[in-house]
Amino acid sequence: MTREERFHKIAKELGYSFDGEIKVGGNYSPLIQHQKIIYISGQIPRVRDDVVIQGALGSDISLEVGQVAAKICAMRAVALLLKHLGSLDRVQKVLRITVYVQSSQGFTQQSEVSDGASEVLCAIFGDSGVHSRTSVGVYQLPKNAPVEIDFVVAVD
Amino acid sequence: MTREERFHKIAKELGYSFDGEIKVGGNYSPLIQHQKIIYISGQIPRVRDDVVIQGALGSDISLEVGQVAAKICAMRAVALLLKHLGSLDRVQKVLRITVYVQSSQGFTQQSEVSDGASEVLCAIFGDSGVHSRTSVGVYQLPKNAPVEIDFVVAVD
Amino acid sequence: MTREERFHKIAKELGYSFDGEIKVGGNYSPLIQHQKIIYISGQIPRVRDDVVIQGALGSDISLEVGQVAAKICAMRAVALLLKHLGSLDRVQKVLRITVYVQSSQGFTQQSEVSDGASEVLCAIFGDSGVHSRTSVGVYQLPKNAPVEIDFVVAVD
Repeated sequence: MTREERFHKIAKELGYSFDGEIKVGGNYSPLIQHQKIIYISGQIPRVRDDVVIQGALGSDISLEVGQVAAKICAMRAVALLLKHLGSLDRVQKVLRITVYVQSSQGFTQQSEVSDGASEVLCAIFGDSGVHSRTSVGVYQLPKNAPVEIDFVVAVD
Repeated sequence: MTREERFHKIAKELGYSFDGEIKVGGNYSPLIQHQKIIYISGQIPRVRDDVVIQGALGSDISLEVGQVAAKICAMRAVALLLKHLGSLDRVQKVLRITVYVQSSQGFTQQSEVSDGASEVLCAIFGDSGVHSRTSVGVYQLPKNAPVEIDFVVAVD
Repeated sequence: MTREERFHKIAKELGYSFDGEIKVGGNYSPLIQHQKIIYISGQIPRVRDDVVIQGALGSDISLEVGQVAAKICAMRAVALLLKHLGSLDRVQKVLRITVYVQSSQGFTQQSEVSDGASEVLCAIFGDSGVHSRTSVGVYQLPKNAPVEIDFVVAVD
């Protein structure tokens, strides 16, 4: 299977389409390429106009649902890469992801939430998807999202 | 108008001068250049010795005041670039900003706060100021600042 | 003294050994090198299997203990660099650290906590250890860690 086929297979398993136009709300861009490095803006589990999972880990939503939210964030990033690059084969290495988890008091499984995103990246890109990672628990996220993730990616 | 003229115009509109020496408190630097990439340390809305806006969004201060705080953070970063580079014309591209918003429970407009910084960057640098962005709501910031922003910038 | 000797001296002063295997829990890596830039994943004050300092600043632990936790995070990063590079002499410049401090309400000395990490980096690497820095107070960290730090480092 190609990387793009794996991307579409995971989208189907999640039950969401990531083909739509990804909108941007201000004087910034979801993706900036400078030379061979791409910076992707913080992604929340939004599908078209809807933030499909909302709430805090440790109170409103379960670890399992939080992992699905992290997967959707990663899929959005991959969708942006596909749209920008034309082909996922141009992704050389995922360098870093920073995972912000909206956390209730006492919730300390931020790393386990992040595993959802890491799994998606490795499933699609194989060894090239293995990345450095930071996971932290924050108090609030935009639109009451449970997870927000940004990315640094090297391309050919 | 040149970039520097636009910088001074915005400073005047905000009513602050960013010409003073920017101090640093520890074994770190407000700005590190490596080859053609500049990393700017987290900036809070400080003018000389004073953090001029303090408190949390969603309780202590309004969205509008939070946006002004974000503008001041961005102006500090531009002031650092001007001092380091000698001319703002050497800024090739703002690559990434990460915006940390001190947020009370239930405040979810972190992106709208960040718009203040994005507006300043685009007003001064035009297309070169369009950046990738991450906005998150954190529990506490140094000196009770409402906003802290760090930057990655490409230069000639 | 060489950088490596200074590293071992600080380890002895802290009373911990950083020689053990550093484990990783998911589909990610503690350290990614791309060309001459290294990204180090978020480090918490873990020594082998134990997070040796836990709790929030401003309630559970003092500023001084928080600074020790920040030092341990920095030492872990240096241990990773040593293991990966074979020699600390190959470190050209520490470019950025981002310091996440688990903070109770009203705690605003995140920068002072970060000073622990900055001191370690400068003690070992001298001028090459002077970095850009962002310090924020977050609500929760993985494993109830008081501090988490990630790093961007340039190497020869």
